[in-house]
Amino acid sequence: MSKRPYILVTNDDGITAPGIQALYRSMQELGDVVVVAPDKEMSAAGHAITLTEPIRTKEVELPGDIIGHAVTGTPADCVKIAVKAILDRKPDLVVSGINLGSNTGVNVLYSGTVSAATEGVILGIPGLAFSLTTYNTSDYQAASHVAKYLTRSVLENGLPENTGLNVNIPPISLDEIKGIRVTKQGKGSFNERFEKRLDPRQKTYYWMTGEPLEIEEDEDADGRVIREGYISVTPIQYDLTHYQFLETLKEWSTFSNGQFNTSEHQ
Amino acid sequence: MSKRPYILVTNDDGITAPGIQALYRSMQELGDVVVVAPDKEMSAAGHAITLTEPIRTKEVELPGDIIGHAVTGTPADCVKIAVKAILDRKPDLVVSGINLGSNTGVNVLYSGTVSAATEGVILGIPGLAFSLTTYNTSDYQAASHVAKYLTRSVLENGLPENTGLNVNIPPISLDEIKGIRVTKQGKGSFNERFEKRLDPRQKTYYWMTGEPLEIEEDEDADGRVIREGYISVTPIQYDLTHYQFLETLKEWSTFSNGQFNTSEHQ
Repeated sequence: MSKRPYILVTNDDGITAPGIQALYRSMQELGDVVVVAPDKEMSAAGHAITLTEPIRTKEVELPGDIIGHAVTGTPADCVKIAVKAILDRKPDLVVSGINLGSNTGVNVLYSGTVSAATEGVILGIPGLAFSLTTYNTSDYQAASHVAKYLTRSVLENGLPENTGLNVNIPPISLDEIKGIRVTKQGKGSFNERFEKRLDPRQKTYYWMTGEPLEIEEDEDADGRVIREGYISVTPIQYDLTHYQFLETLKEWSTFSNGQFNTSEHQ
Repeated sequence: MSKRPYILVTNDDGITAPGIQALYRSMQELGDVVVVAPDKEMSAAGHAITLTEPIRTKEVELPGDIIGHAVTGTPADCVKIAVKAILDRKPDLVVSGINLGSNTGVNVLYSGTVSAATEGVILGIPGLAFSLTTYNTSDYQAASHVAKYLTRSVLENGLPENTGLNVNIPPISLDEIKGIRVTKQGKGSFNERFEKRLDPRQKTYYWMTGEPLEIEEDEDADGRVIREGYISVTPIQYDLTHYQFLETLKEWSTFSNGQFNTSEHQ
């Protein structure tokens, strides 16, 4: 590209998370970077947006001379308010992460990290989400490198309209990573439990917890390639229509008999 | 069905919203109904779930002798905690609504109403979302009737695995409704603005607001059929993979040259 790309960096772990600083530094080598991110942890925020409460923003200084904008909102809010109110020009890319914890399988739906990237796509900006598939690390070296490599690829190749990339990186060194696989969203999910406890006032409360369900995954499923030591890159879009079922559904007499507003069904 | 179906009713407008009471009453004619819903408005909650805070539940009495469970969480939380902790057996259906405001086009991503239905689907339970496409009505008569008609259809026909229905109903009388159309998620979206204000302490805050973008929609798009006076029924699923682009992406040299971990790109 002739001019330096303008890159919006965000996340769902909050603006003070180490992962966003690592991502900032790797993006700085590719373009002009601005950070607009939630002021606190917003994990599992899904694609929530804030309509019924006001949103505030605040400039904050982060380690490494990064000036960022902290937002009292969700990851999707951050992308919207950055593009529509904070920034003076439209970014060329929205890059989200580096998240701690995998965003594969059903988790993609719950992920604020992925939703921030998707929000970029909705606004006509290519969006990339990066997740490191562990909760316990402070080593972002391999993931930062991968983020830079894939972001440079996207800048060179471009993405079609309405398309983002959801990238998951196994928590191993660059030398140990076997390669990169283009994947689909797998069937991985959690078997949630609600742990029931009593507070000091003897009132009940619950914590959502659980374990990953062990299931057979296709060879090109995101969760499986991660387990096999590959980086997973899933192209994503945001049309939830179940096209395969659409024609079958049309054949239901429900839709053809015109009876929905007769007394027969009242 | 030989036995009465067990129907979980939820929403995103909160357990005291008139729409959930209307939905409760129409579902009562089809089966045994239980209400588990957010204790406050959770519009635009998307598919958020609550991992970093405890969740509380409370039995509440609603008008019309309805006993419900109010949950300090999102619509998706409500479905999870209902199925995993509150109810003693798995419901046969998750029915969400009746929402005030359309959930068509891009809004489907932001919608707590739709996410509750999708959460049912994730847990292996058919999920239906019902929205009345206006913010200003207290007349749920037509929408209740449509909800009952379509829910009965689903009970009779069944839905394939991993499938829900997103139903939008125009705010007109049953006689005026032209019919039912099976649709896809359209391209309808909002042109958001952030309205900047000063609070009494002279600190800046923003309200997200905006208007629907006027765009040409395909004949079978959810928003378009609503505008034409039809009920819109979109079959939905939760795989965000962009399958059309997947093979093209694989052809990028990015994925074939094995260079991602060489010094060339460091």
